[in-house]
Amino acid sequence: MSDKKHLAIWRSGDWAIGRRRFLGLGSLGALASTVAAACRKATPPAKAVQSWLGAPVSRYGARAKYETAAREFRQSRRNEASSSRTPLQSSHGVITPSSLHFERHHGGVPDIDPATHRLLIHGLVDRPVILTMDEIRRLPSVSRIYFLECSGNTGSEWGGPNEPDVQRAFGLTSCSEWTGVPLRSILDDLGLQSAGRWIVAEGADACRMTRSLPIEKAMDDVLLAYGQNGEALRPEQGYPLRLFVPGWEGNINVKWLRVLKVVAEPAMSREETSKYTDLMPDGRARQFSFTMDAKSVITHPSGGHKLASPGVCEITGLAWSGRGAIARVEVSTDNGATWHTATLDTPVLKLAHTRFHYTWWWDGQPAVIRSRCIDETGYVQPTREELVAVRGFFSNYHYNGIQSWKVQPDGTVTNA
Amino acid sequence: MSDKKHLAIWRSGDWAIGRRRFLGLGSLGALASTVAAACRKATPPAKAVQSWLGAPVSRYGARAKYETAAREFRQSRRNEASSSRTPLQSSHGVITPSSLHFERHHGGVPDIDPATHRLLIHGLVDRPVILTMDEIRRLPSVSRIYFLECSGNTGSEWGGPNEPDVQRAFGLTSCSEWTGVPLRSILDDLGLQSAGRWIVAEGADACRMTRSLPIEKAMDDVLLAYGQNGEALRPEQGYPLRLFVPGWEGNINVKWLRVLKVVAEPAMSREETSKYTDLMPDGRARQFSFTMDAKSVITHPSGGHKLASPGVCEITGLAWSGRGAIARVEVSTDNGATWHTATLDTPVLKLAHTRFHYTWWWDGQPAVIRSRCIDETGYVQPTREELVAVRGFFSNYHYNGIQSWKVQPDGTVTNA
Repeated sequence: MSDKKHLAIWRSGDWAIGRRRFLGLGSLGALASTVAAACRKATPPAKAVQSWLGAPVSRYGARAKYETAAREFRQSRRNEASSSRTPLQSSHGVITPSSLHFERHHGGVPDIDPATHRLLIHGLVDRPVILTMDEIRRLPSVSRIYFLECSGNTGSEWGGPNEPDVQRAFGLTSCSEWTGVPLRSILDDLGLQSAGRWIVAEGADACRMTRSLPIEKAMDDVLLAYGQNGEALRPEQGYPLRLFVPGWEGNINVKWLRVLKVVAEPAMSREETSKYTDLMPDGRARQFSFTMDAKSVITHPSGGHKLASPGVCEITGLAWSGRGAIARVEVSTDNGATWHTATLDTPVLKLAHTRFHYTWWWDGQPAVIRSRCIDETGYVQPTREELVAVRGFFSNYHYNGIQSWKVQPDGTVTNA
Repeated sequence: MSDKKHLAIWRSGDWAIGRRRFLGLGSLGALASTVAAACRKATPPAKAVQSWLGAPVSRYGARAKYETAAREFRQSRRNEASSSRTPLQSSHGVITPSSLHFERHHGGVPDIDPATHRLLIHGLVDRPVILTMDEIRRLPSVSRIYFLECSGNTGSEWGGPNEPDVQRAFGLTSCSEWTGVPLRSILDDLGLQSAGRWIVAEGADACRMTRSLPIEKAMDDVLLAYGQNGEALRPEQGYPLRLFVPGWEGNINVKWLRVLKVVAEPAMSREETSKYTDLMPDGRARQFSFTMDAKSVITHPSGGHKLASPGVCEITGLAWSGRGAIARVEVSTDNGATWHTATLDTPVLKLAHTRFHYTWWWDGQPAVIRSRCIDETGYVQPTREELVAVRGFFSNYHYNGIQSWKVQPDGTVTNA
């Protein structure tokens, strides 16, 4: 029977690899093995059809009860001043569900009634102003898909492989469609004074999170954001209003935004002096390290996954850069000896997560897989060794070294 | 004091319009009025800061308690066979939150355990197969942002203005990032026979929703979709697996997909004969009307909104086309006498919602506002009269006429 013949062929990894090479289409030969593994008597599966009516329509939907992906956080002394991480190991595409967007709070999530919230803009402007949320929402707005990453993301890996999975190691990055008013248009209108070189942003949370932003960035692409993924900002993301600073480290995207003050010099707040700076090998501090460098990581397969069997394996992951768009992602499945260009889902957007794919034929042998990305400025994601050579070992923030995962013969995957 | 002088200037609509025209930037002069309306003593708002810790980090977030946007549905005899509509009047950007994606069920939402779900692919293929969800998820996948629209959307407006708001009139369209396996790659591998010209898709819901799809589309961009907006499909969208047919009418995107059968002729199922066909003026039926024509609608301000005061008003809305990308959206604020090119949020994606913006200076007089779109094929959204002249008055589906909203002097907005 022809099916049997095909099964025999499909079970030959060599044949499948050869066919893939011949056609230049990873999906075809790769698919065959899975189909082979799955091939059964082709009759409709019994009991798969409901013969009774299902659930009715509803006002605001919820995910399936079988889905359990969740943000991860360690119990800390105060979970109000903590972080939670996005489950990248089960992510699809580039949009992060708002319910799974990473969190980093310094004083917990305040409960703010948008009807009473106000934004004060003052300092070196001709016409200081206080705006209500209704007034802000009347203004011309824009929506863009951008990533947001905590500068502490992946800090665990400075000393080498540490965290067991991609969520714990890389989960402080997420990507959403953000909606808001360009700050530029408001500053233009209020009469920005020439002495105004910085803007100090302050949140309405218990810690009054405060950061200073150079005026050039404020006049470029910064948003007063009130929308996220098509609805209002989530409370954990600054409801009802946050500063959104595309491509820059997370903590400067001040949440629960209540004050913007235009000033001549930066505030030198706690979060830009004692925190969010890095000690360099020469004893100086790396301060105002705003831009998130290019980074990539394989999200599947990654630490904690277990491959069911040799054969086709979709390697997929995310790449992003605070400098612009991702130009190329390369994947190695042989510990860095050779690299293959990955396919990028389109559109590839500036300052947004980019999803990459590479179809791998796993032969069942131990393997080390990794990705590296190059952004449109030509910046190449460094190895850990290259990064440490420049930054030393005293840094907490802005780690973006290449990440490796080891696949064991039994299919288990670990941080390598 | 200089503030007073500016207030006086900002209150002059003429000045602001003049300034806008001069600068060619709607946002600048338009903004001024709002800022003027808001101008108060510029001191930090009292009691706006929490001095106590807020809420801790959490596993899976929820929206703010102040946000109440919800899908709308009328109580029907059976809410299991009903529809619910997306609250477009409060939408931002182009992504629809999965919790607010419109629904249309013919037999309710089945409860399917992905561990036991199977997809049978058989008929005119050399190697029929049954696939598990794990096997499908192993295959090379792709993620794309696409709209999905019920062909019955806006059917209420065939006879003229009917529904009071944009949710009830236009809420059967939504837009998500969908993730899945290209059907093409699977059909290629299974050995599609030359006699196979159609594929019949069947759902696992109580009504066994069944539709026929031409093989050319199946081999183009159709997905076996299991992901939506970064996580698993929602139950109302076909969890764990649906057919996704970009740009084509909603009901052919069969949910809870369990069988694909390659055949020579369409099945002529209930949903493509007695339903989802339109009676034309000559007595013939318009059948297999797959493609969703270009459509646009202003979502703000729209029916049920009330403008707070004359002055700046951001007109924003959505445009989409089943034929490709939106090329241009035009807005009229004078009952169609003159048209202005709207700004489109980027990227403008094929077969996806496109968000448009136009900054309007409302002078407080009655006004009729509307939008029309042109897609990349040159197709122009018709007026209702143009549409009726071709299709007659017996249609239920595929209405895409230009929608008008009337703004009354007191700021209320109604369907015109």
